[in-house]
Amino acid sequence: MLAETAYGKSRVRLVKVARHGDRHDLTDLAVAIRFEGDYDTSYTDGDNSGVLPTDTMKNTVYALAATGEAEEPEVFGMRLASHFRQRNPRLRRVRIDISAHPWGRIAIGGREQGQAFIRQGSETRTSTVEMDATKHTIGAGVTDLTILKSSRSAFAGFLRDEYTTLPDTADRLLATSLTATWRYADAEVHFGPAWRVIRTTLVETFAQHDSKSVQHTLHEMARAVLDSVAPVTAIRLVMPNKHHLPVDLARLGLENRNEVFVPTDEPYGLIEATLVR
Amino acid sequence: MLAETAYGKSRVRLVKVARHGDRHDLTDLAVAIRFEGDYDTSYTDGDNSGVLPTDTMKNTVYALAATGEAEEPEVFGMRLASHFRQRNPRLRRVRIDISAHPWGRIAIGGREQGQAFIRQGSETRTSTVEMDATKHTIGAGVTDLTILKSSRSAFAGFLRDEYTTLPDTADRLLATSLTATWRYADAEVHFGPAWRVIRTTLVETFAQHDSKSVQHTLHEMARAVLDSVAPVTAIRLVMPNKHHLPVDLARLGLENRNEVFVPTDEPYGLIEATLVR
Amino acid sequence: MLAETAYGKSRVRLVKVARHGDRHDLTDLAVAIRFEGDYDTSYTDGDNSGVLPTDTMKNTVYALAATGEAEEPEVFGMRLASHFRQRNPRLRRVRIDISAHPWGRIAIGGREQGQAFIRQGSETRTSTVEMDATKHTIGAGVTDLTILKSSRSAFAGFLRDEYTTLPDTADRLLATSLTATWRYADAEVHFGPAWRVIRTTLVETFAQHDSKSVQHTLHEMARAVLDSVAPVTAIRLVMPNKHHLPVDLARLGLENRNEVFVPTDEPYGLIEATLVR
Amino acid sequence: MLAETAYGKSRVRLVKVARHGDRHDLTDLAVAIRFEGDYDTSYTDGDNSGVLPTDTMKNTVYALAATGEAEEPEVFGMRLASHFRQRNPRLRRVRIDISAHPWGRIAIGGREQGQAFIRQGSETRTSTVEMDATKHTIGAGVTDLTILKSSRSAFAGFLRDEYTTLPDTADRLLATSLTATWRYADAEVHFGPAWRVIRTTLVETFAQHDSKSVQHTLHEMARAVLDSVAPVTAIRLVMPNKHHLPVDLARLGLENRNEVFVPTDEPYGLIEATLVR
Repeated sequence: MLAETAYGKSRVRLVKVARHGDRHDLTDLAVAIRFEGDYDTSYTDGDNSGVLPTDTMKNTVYALAATGEAEEPEVFGMRLASHFRQRNPRLRRVRIDISAHPWGRIAIGGREQGQAFIRQGSETRTSTVEMDATKHTIGAGVTDLTILKSSRSAFAGFLRDEYTTLPDTADRLLATSLTATWRYADAEVHFGPAWRVIRTTLVETFAQHDSKSVQHTLHEMARAVLDSVAPVTAIRLVMPNKHHLPVDLARLGLENRNEVFVPTDEPYGLIEATLVR
Repeated sequence: MLAETAYGKSRVRLVKVARHGDRHDLTDLAVAIRFEGDYDTSYTDGDNSGVLPTDTMKNTVYALAATGEAEEPEVFGMRLASHFRQRNPRLRRVRIDISAHPWGRIAIGGREQGQAFIRQGSETRTSTVEMDATKHTIGAGVTDLTILKSSRSAFAGFLRDEYTTLPDTADRLLATSLTATWRYADAEVHFGPAWRVIRTTLVETFAQHDSKSVQHTLHEMARAVLDSVAPVTAIRLVMPNKHHLPVDLARLGLENRNEVFVPTDEPYGLIEATLVR
Repeated sequence: MLAETAYGKSRVRLVKVARHGDRHDLTDLAVAIRFEGDYDTSYTDGDNSGVLPTDTMKNTVYALAATGEAEEPEVFGMRLASHFRQRNPRLRRVRIDISAHPWGRIAIGGREQGQAFIRQGSETRTSTVEMDATKHTIGAGVTDLTILKSSRSAFAGFLRDEYTTLPDTADRLLATSLTATWRYADAEVHFGPAWRVIRTTLVETFAQHDSKSVQHTLHEMARAVLDSVAPVTAIRLVMPNKHHLPVDLARLGLENRNEVFVPTDEPYGLIEATLVR
Repeated sequence: MLAETAYGKSRVRLVKVARHGDRHDLTDLAVAIRFEGDYDTSYTDGDNSGVLPTDTMKNTVYALAATGEAEEPEVFGMRLASHFRQRNPRLRRVRIDISAHPWGRIAIGGREQGQAFIRQGSETRTSTVEMDATKHTIGAGVTDLTILKSSRSAFAGFLRDEYTTLPDTADRLLATSLTATWRYADAEVHFGPAWRVIRTTLVETFAQHDSKSVQHTLHEMARAVLDSVAPVTAIRLVMPNKHHLPVDLARLGLENRNEVFVPTDEPYGLIEATLVR
């Protein structure tokens, strides 16, 4: 028996250049569309009569980008969700996920050139719009934001059992590749400025916190966002602990001054939490 | 307010060699452990007194692999889950995800050599065990199983709107990289043989089905598993449609005989469904 | 001053289905084309008049795949190289690199179904054709062939200095992801069968050798190919040492029986050599 | 017969924190070491007596990072190369490749915090030192520097044959992920400032050039470096043409204003050249 279905199109990539005289604006998105609804007979009987092709979803992304605003991913997500909802009676719930890749402007002798761009960071701005017959939710986030602090990070006083070999540490490197997602109360938000304030709050709180653990710092970062950005109703952080192991220099006949570390990709701790207002 | 938390260790990699005389058995796993429980004060106050370090979780994987069976991921997952449940009163729910990478034996002149191995496929066997105070669930799956059929695949008669440009097709290439996950009714299963039967059922059904769409074939594959493997209570399939576009040879002054295709990685259709008994 | 130039197209992907009644043959290639020649003014002056667009190179791959054989990468590479050489007087030297991805046939109840395929391994067959005015060379190879042996592998008696901490070992796991490339004396080779014999020779020699080091086994593997496959004039092997570190179970109060290992991705040893006849 | 051999260690990762009171400096490197020399008997006979283990190479990276400067990759590479040359009589030629990953400082309210860092860009600074008995060469570079221009880029007037379908274009998006490597005349260079000047020169020239092709702009970028940075004796640029295809909006009944593009990862043009003084 069919308990759950969904279908859609992922990784619809789009670069839009808006030309305002000498100054161009660049938008670089990857869009995913996900339909849930009354599509069971397409599975059970191969009846495609109510199925909008995923190829059409892709075309729609380009059509709506050409005929209106695509700059703010939350707004473009709402436009796409509304479009699909209005035309597809079988569609019960649509979800639009957008990743926006950041580009900066190239400066010539300190002055920005309006038509040349440089990719900035691996960090990505994300947004998620979900819409059904009666309501919609708008979320945003950031992913692959890699940050590290070289002081004010301890991990001590933890539970020990027969397989515990980790020593207490009062001064370790703390590094993570942050994924944050949050939900806005409604659509009455200046999405760009709100995103930038939240990102800054996350990064600054990470830098300043006296960390007793990843959990401890994660909580402080999420709390700071709820405290300072009113339209955010809930926030979820996922923080892999990208371990930096001190090199055992004593084995090499050298003094260890907590300066030389091996960054490791695996295994990694994985800490997550959701805070709601 | 903390609404939800979890922490654990991911990508704990383990290779175990069991030596039975001249014949060795090789197990190659990546383990992820996830704790949910009464850990709120570690977030809010940095109180680590009840927190088992993720480093200890990693050590425990190696200790249990050294002192007992690790060959079947479902069984090893149950051993790990039980171990953690029994010793951690704050632990409300533990989840163990294991990926097993397949190796075959190297044959010399047609005869298997017992101590040399070759990595087979990108396909991975997966298992998930979840355990709380009163119950446990055991799931298994396969991921990155890449299959393609060059006949008996159509997509026609679908919904059209103003942005639909896709033509009906009676004969297209159908390719996917299958992710399947299923749940077993209980632990009284021969996990290895069951896994192999289910994998074979999925692959053979894909090959034989007269496909009217990815949805249609996905449903048939899931149904075949429920029909033929009694201990499976639910199965979920996720099938990206890895599009193979016919090359427009007419533009090159050549006849098109539906023989030459461009495989594309993005965008891709994404079709999913869960079937329950 | 321009000292060296080249231009071309990379990652031209192509799937070809040859339909022989009920039985289809599947070819899955990625082609790279590289031109060297009299193209300096395109760099210095932006003079494109002699520049064949890389887009045309791509079209040519599809055109030649549609109008002739593409099944053996060495043969298809020769066809492409000859085509470009004949039509481009400025072209001094052309190089065609092809990667062929292996697919097996799906069997139904032990009998192969002729029109359904399953991706096999991450291993890739490669070929390189180079052609200039007076001669051509044909090479082939394999990449990402991952193999492991759990016996007959030692590493001892090596040079020690003040930073050497590695102990001698008589029994270690030896694993690698082999890249092999070789050159054929001429084009009078049955490329498919030759490739399979060479691959088997490499794998079997790896399995059987009493290894004193990666270097030692690499040499034996290359030598075996030169000994047994007459048309091969030179062979180069690159073997990363994919270290598997024994887990220090003593720290966990357990006995170590050389059974439990941590596979690591980095750092890795990298051993390479070229043997010529 | 052994024609060529090399061995070494790759992906030795190292993070060094230099603590100057409240202000820390962070260095994040991946080091590769490659030995060529009189090591043939290790291949032919398994004679390890002259072989420095690659594990010792790794230890040496950490030892030298702990006991001296590792901040400038060129300088650290020279230290490593000299160390290995002096102690290994069989070593004929050593090569040290270093990748340095860029981190910026986190600012709090516009003021840099001295002990917290954020990963910047995917772009990597590279260096290569080669040393043999009589001489050494020092090179540097940048890789994964992704840049795009939305004006002043044409491609027209090129060679056409029967498979050419590409139209002339006077106004296309030009994007690349630049890899540049260059050689310094000697070691009397301020490597950090030189690197930054060269990187700026490459980026600014890309932005300002009236491009008739990738070749044309590549040449101008390389020439600008040779013109403006005296110690550079040769420079090599490799520029994949990351195609951005205009969406055919006419098919969707919409006007095309050269605003909406599909970025594609494959196939890609690949343009390269070396300029020497």
